[in-house]
Amino acid sequence: PYNIVGARKLVRLKALNERVKLAVTADSPDTVAGYAESFAGGPGTLTVLVECDTGGSRCGVQAPAQALALARQVAMSQGLRFGGLMTYPPMGGLERSERWLEDAVALLDAAGLSAETVSSGNTPDIWNTRSGVVTEVRPGTYIYNDRFQVQNGAAGWDDCALTVLTTVVSRPTATRVVIDAGSKALSSDNPGLEGFGVIMGGVATIKSLSEEHGVIELGAPSDTPRVGDRLRIVPNHACVVSNLFDVVNFVRDDAVVETVAVAARGRSD
Amino acid sequence: PYNIVGARKLVRLKALNERVKLAVTADSPDTVAGYAESFAGGPGTLTVLVECDTGGSRCGVQAPAQALALARQVAMSQGLRFGGLMTYPPMGGLERSERWLEDAVALLDAAGLSAETVSSGNTPDIWNTRSGVVTEVRPGTYIYNDRFQVQNGAAGWDDCALTVLTTVVSRPTATRVVIDAGSKALSSDNPGLEGFGVIMGGVATIKSLSEEHGVIELGAPSDTPRVGDRLRIVPNHACVVSNLFDVVNFVRDDAVVETVAVAARGRSD
Repeated sequence: PYNIVGARKLVRLKALNERVKLAVTADSPDTVAGYAESFAGGPGTLTVLVECDTGGSRCGVQAPAQALALARQVAMSQGLRFGGLMTYPPMGGLERSERWLEDAVALLDAAGLSAETVSSGNTPDIWNTRSGVVTEVRPGTYIYNDRFQVQNGAAGWDDCALTVLTTVVSRPTATRVVIDAGSKALSSDNPGLEGFGVIMGGVATIKSLSEEHGVIELGAPSDTPRVGDRLRIVPNHACVVSNLFDVVNFVRDDAVVETVAVAARGRSD
Repeated sequence: PYNIVGARKLVRLKALNERVKLAVTADSPDTVAGYAESFAGGPGTLTVLVECDTGGSRCGVQAPAQALALARQVAMSQGLRFGGLMTYPPMGGLERSERWLEDAVALLDAAGLSAETVSSGNTPDIWNTRSGVVTEVRPGTYIYNDRFQVQNGAAGWDDCALTVLTTVVSRPTATRVVIDAGSKALSSDNPGLEGFGVIMGGVATIKSLSEEHGVIELGAPSDTPRVGDRLRIVPNHACVVSNLFDVVNFVRDDAVVETVAVAARGRSD
């Protein structure tokens, strides 16, 4: 996972590292120092990847030389092991990202520090890797897929496994349909798409959201869908929708076959 | 609450109506018929308000004459009681909304149907009511207030009671600050504001969000805030942020004095 900062989280990280195989990232000397302080006396060794900003403008060191400096700090710290590099590539900038990583790996090799793992995202680019530099991909959305992935050609509608089941609660006009799913069920995430999700089996999209309701505008007046009808929505962004519900229902042939808690959500620390 | 549709929910509604004073809304003959079927045999009587679309383009009947027709259906249904009118007024359209309601009340009066309650939203317009027609306001955001309310002149920064406490986890550049709150903590809601929340005690706003991180761009290079520093964020929209957490902590003098579960969230039915 990402930079872990703060004493309380480091205690939990240390306990977790005893139970599972994990690697964390760092992009600053302060973060590495925190890991080192926690793991210096053992037991166990923490694997640290250096996070690289290869164009995504989020976290990460800004240049391959900085990656090398941080890798050295990790390698020299008792209790830590340098595991390699990690990045989240910029949308549409995979080639640039891979060149960045190649440069960094070359610097590391020259310094005798081998990058065992070179980890990259993301689902839209999952099939586009050209370079051999990446050894691991983290395609998070790939588990479910969503409307954004379809729009980006990374998946088809049949690959979309996560849907939100809604009920039509109002038909104020012959073209307006209101469903009981708003921004608290579908999220306001809209990565450059029209509207906030599509209705399965139809061409309509959700035009606007209030907190409890979604508003669909039909292209032509229609009596259907009627109040009480149920519609399945493929959301714009599956990740944030998962985060809005306590449980996920696994459905086969229209029957719920298993219900699983969404554990890693809603936490304030 | 809004239109309640479906047998399972009507069973729960009936049980709840025995325990608390409540009123529901309806904007279609189908919804009224559902209430009537559930309450016809008693025990108890359900109070129904007719929801009116006074310009907000969400739920609601489209004209005062339709409100009258639906009020008649409620009044003639065994087990139901006509309680009045309800609307969520359009942003910046309060005057038009109030004229709509006045027209509807006049029609109802002429038909011998008194609108005991005329219920309207919303927080930004809470101080702007001119007409005497409204008997109840539902200012939901008012409990906490947020950046949007400040922007609309409905509150000051000191009135904002809900904040998200975050930790700086990365300082990739001299102007970029990354905090551990992204769209899963602050939501992507952005009602016409720049960015996704403001940092208390400073002028910086959150420029962009990924799921786990928020990115702040400082106006000028600075060593502070540092990795590990904590920042409080006033979110754009308090309602959807409440919906993202399992608990809310009440804080006095920097100490948590009470922790309350956010019960009405994460449910799939």
